[in-house]
Amino acid sequence: MSTPDFVAALTEELGGRCRVIADGDLLASYRQDMATVVPGGLPAAVVQPRTTADVAAALRLASSYGVAVVPRGAGTSLAGGASAVDGCLVLSTEALTTIRTLDPLDRVAVVEAGVVNADLDRAAAAHGLMYAPDPSSWEISTIGGNVATNAGGLRCVKYGVTRQSVLGLEVVLADGRIIETGTRTTKNVAGYDLTGLLVGSEGTLGVITAATVKLHRRPLTPPATVVAAFASLEEAGAAVASIVASGPDVSLLELLDGVTLRAIDDWKRMGLAGIEAMLVVQVDGRFPDDADLVASLCAAAGAVDEPAVSTDPAESDQLLAIRRLAYPAAERMGQCLVEDVGVPVSRLPEMIRRIDRAAATHGVTVLTVAHAGDGNLHPTFIFDHAGDTATGIPPEVAAAADDVFAAALDLDGTITGEHGVGVLKAHWLERQVGPDAMALQRAVKAAFDPSGILNPGKMLP
Amino acid sequence: MSTPDFVAALTEELGGRCRVIADGDLLASYRQDMATVVPGGLPAAVVQPRTTADVAAALRLASSYGVAVVPRGAGTSLAGGASAVDGCLVLSTEALTTIRTLDPLDRVAVVEAGVVNADLDRAAAAHGLMYAPDPSSWEISTIGGNVATNAGGLRCVKYGVTRQSVLGLEVVLADGRIIETGTRTTKNVAGYDLTGLLVGSEGTLGVITAATVKLHRRPLTPPATVVAAFASLEEAGAAVASIVASGPDVSLLELLDGVTLRAIDDWKRMGLAGIEAMLVVQVDGRFPDDADLVASLCAAAGAVDEPAVSTDPAESDQLLAIRRLAYPAAERMGQCLVEDVGVPVSRLPEMIRRIDRAAATHGVTVLTVAHAGDGNLHPTFIFDHAGDTATGIPPEVAAAADDVFAAALDLDGTITGEHGVGVLKAHWLERQVGPDAMALQRAVKAAFDPSGILNPGKMLP
Repeated sequence: MSTPDFVAALTEELGGRCRVIADGDLLASYRQDMATVVPGGLPAAVVQPRTTADVAAALRLASSYGVAVVPRGAGTSLAGGASAVDGCLVLSTEALTTIRTLDPLDRVAVVEAGVVNADLDRAAAAHGLMYAPDPSSWEISTIGGNVATNAGGLRCVKYGVTRQSVLGLEVVLADGRIIETGTRTTKNVAGYDLTGLLVGSEGTLGVITAATVKLHRRPLTPPATVVAAFASLEEAGAAVASIVASGPDVSLLELLDGVTLRAIDDWKRMGLAGIEAMLVVQVDGRFPDDADLVASLCAAAGAVDEPAVSTDPAESDQLLAIRRLAYPAAERMGQCLVEDVGVPVSRLPEMIRRIDRAAATHGVTVLTVAHAGDGNLHPTFIFDHAGDTATGIPPEVAAAADDVFAAALDLDGTITGEHGVGVLKAHWLERQVGPDAMALQRAVKAAFDPSGILNPGKMLP
Repeated sequence: MSTPDFVAALTEELGGRCRVIADGDLLASYRQDMATVVPGGLPAAVVQPRTTADVAAALRLASSYGVAVVPRGAGTSLAGGASAVDGCLVLSTEALTTIRTLDPLDRVAVVEAGVVNADLDRAAAAHGLMYAPDPSSWEISTIGGNVATNAGGLRCVKYGVTRQSVLGLEVVLADGRIIETGTRTTKNVAGYDLTGLLVGSEGTLGVITAATVKLHRRPLTPPATVVAAFASLEEAGAAVASIVASGPDVSLLELLDGVTLRAIDDWKRMGLAGIEAMLVVQVDGRFPDDADLVASLCAAAGAVDEPAVSTDPAESDQLLAIRRLAYPAAERMGQCLVEDVGVPVSRLPEMIRRIDRAAATHGVTVLTVAHAGDGNLHPTFIFDHAGDTATGIPPEVAAAADDVFAAALDLDGTITGEHGVGVLKAHWLERQVGPDAMALQRAVKAAFDPSGILNPGKMLP
C-alpha cells in the first residue's frame, strides 16, 4: 500500500466534499509552521475536513495505509508542533469553523477546532462574555491549536491558561473512532481526566475536532493600565513580587528587560537610557483604584519617576504600545528563535540574569519579555545565518538556548510554559520529567496511538 | 508466594521503622471508609509508611507477591474509594504528615499525603495565605485523599476544585518506582499532563506521597453572609442564575431543598413552613457591599421576606448554621447514602424535580443540598434496613439512585461532581463516558499498573 495509493483513496473518499491538496506550491506551504527554523517535510497530501465524520474517515484511511498524520490549526506554533514530515497527511482544521452552541446562561460554548480564538471571543462579547485565553496569536490562531498546546496568553495571569477554560472535548482517535470527554459542568470526577490529558498533547494522542469551553463575564469597563520603569532588574522583580503578594488581581503583568528596551529605544528613540526593566500592568476589575494601588507598589519598589496610569482606553492603548514593540524590535535585528521557559515568580530576576549570562557566553543577542505574573519568560534569540543542524538553528544559538533550558530547570522551572515541546524541545523533555515519567509518557502515547501515526517526532523524540 | 509470606516479608522489611498491623480488631477497622453501605474486605495487613522510600518498599513487595494495595488517607470517601478487599495491603498515609516547604513568596507548599487539609490551611494562615479546597471533611481528610479524589468543597465555586490547586505530585508507581510530575510554576506544558491524570485517579494509577500545591491569599476580612428563603424552587433557581450571571464572585453558594428544610424544621422548629428552597451565600472579597448586591438579586428573584445579611463573624456563623444542619437532620431519619451528581447551573431546579420524582417513584426519602454555584447536588437517600446487594444498598434506594444518575446524564451532567466513582458508581462510569473512552480509561490504567494491583474494583469495574 503505497503513498500514491493512499492519496488516491483519500481523494476518492473525501475529495467530493472536502478540499484535498496533493501537489504544487500550496502543498509545499504546509511544510512549516511559525517556527520557521524548522524546515519541515513535504506532505503527500493536505485535507481540510468539513465535519467530524470527515476527520474520522481521513484517520481511518491514514491508519489503514500507515500514513503519518500531522494535525494543523492555523500553523502558529513556535515550537514546530505543526511542522510536516515527508509523505504525511496534513489534517488541517481550517474548514471546521462552526460555533455549535453558545449558552450565555451557563456560560459555555461548544466550538469546532478551526474557529479562530478572536472569533469565539467576539461571539461571546455579543452576550457580555469573553473567551479568556488570549495567546499573542489570538487574531489568527484556532481553538483546536490552542487546546492542543494548552496555549497561555497575557490575561491568563488572572483567568488561567487554556486548560482552565476547557470542560470537554470531541476527539477523533488514530483509528477513526470518535470520543467525547468531559461534561458541561464545572465539576466532574467521573473517571480519569482524559480532557486534561488531551489538552496540551500536541496532536499526538488524537485530533481535537471540537471543544466545550467555559466563558467568563466580560469586564464592564476597559482595563486600567500602569507602566513603570526601573533602573535595575531587581527593583522590577521586587515590584512584581509585591503586586503578586499584596496587589489586586491583575489581568496583565508584563516585564521587558534591558536588552529589549535598548532595542526598542534604538529604533523608536523613546528616551529609555538607564532603564533596565519596565513593567506593563493592567487591571480589568470593577475597581479602577486598583491601578493606583499597582502604581504605588511599583513606586515603593523603586520605580524611576512616577508610574504612568490611565483608565482611558486610548491612553491605555498607548501605554501598552511599548509591550507590542518588543517582537517587532527583535525582528528588525535578524532571524528570531522565540523561546519559552517558566520559573517561580520569585526567581524571575535570577532567570533573566542567567539568560544574559548564556547570551554573553555564546556571543548571542537575546531579548527577554516575560509574562511576569506567571513567571513565564520569552527569551528571543537573534541570529543572521542559517544553522547546520536538523532544526535550522545555528550552533551558538542552540548552545545558548540549552543553557537557558538548564537554568530554568535549575530554578525549579519548566522548559516550556505555553508554546509546547514540538520538535524544538523534544530532546529536552526527558531532562525535565526524568526517565520513569518519560516511560509513562510513552506508555500513554502507545495507549492512544499504538501504531504511532499521530504527529510523529513531536513532543516525544 | 502466599499472603502469609507477604505479611512476613513486609513485617521484616518495614516493621522496624513503620507501624504494620496484621491482625485483630484494628485490622478489621480498615475494612470500610465513610461509605458505610460498602461492607469492604478484610485486609491481610495495614502499613503506615513514614517516608516515600517506605511506600516504595511496600509497593515493591506487594508487586512481587501480587498482593492488591488499597491506598488510604483518612478514609472519608463517600463512594467506597478506600474500602478494602480481602487479603489486600492497606497502605495508610497517616504517618506521612510533614509539610516539607511552605513558600509564602511564591505561594506554594510541598505537602506530604497524610497532612490534614485543615492543618495545611492553618499553616498557610500563619502567612496570610490559605489552602482553598475545602471538602466538608476538611478537618479530618488528608491532602493525599483530596488529590486522589479531586475533592471539591464549598468555596471551590470561587477558587476551583483540588485540581486547580495542584501544581505537581510525588507518586510511587505500582512497582515501587518514584516519579515527580509537574513543576512549581503556574504554567507548564512540558509533556502530557500526568499531574492532571493522577489527580482524581482514586489510587488506581499510583500512590500519591506528596503534592506541590498553590496557596491563595487569605481574605483580609471574614466573609459576609446572605440567607434567602423562597416559596418555590424555581425562584431559588432564578436567584442562583442571576447571582452567577451578574452578581459578585461568591465564595459559597449553597441551596437547601424543601425536603431538607422540612427535616430541619421538624427537628429544630425554625418556622420554615411554606419555604421550598433556601440559599446560603457568602462573599469573601474586599467589598462587603457585594453581600447587599446578592441580597437584592435574591429579592428580585422573589425571596420570601427580606434576605438576611451579615458581615459580623458571629452573626454570619449563625446564618450558616442552617446549612450545617442538613446532614445531621438526614442522619436522624435513618441510614444515609450521600450521593453526588452535577448538572449545568441552569438545570438545577429541573434536576431537583427529577430527584423528587425518583424518590416518589421508588418510595424513598431523599433530601437534597447543592453547591448551587457549581451545579453540584448531594441528594441524600434515607433508609432503615440493610440491602441484599453486594453494596449493602437496599434495592429501592439503588433504583432511585439509578434514576438520579440517569437524569444527571440526561441533563448534560455527571454521575459524580466531587466524591469520585469508587465502588459505588463503578458500574455507571461507562454509561457516562461511552465504550470507546472507557477502553482508553482501561488502557491508561494498564499503562500505569499493568498487573492491576492498585485499588482493584475502584473506578473501573
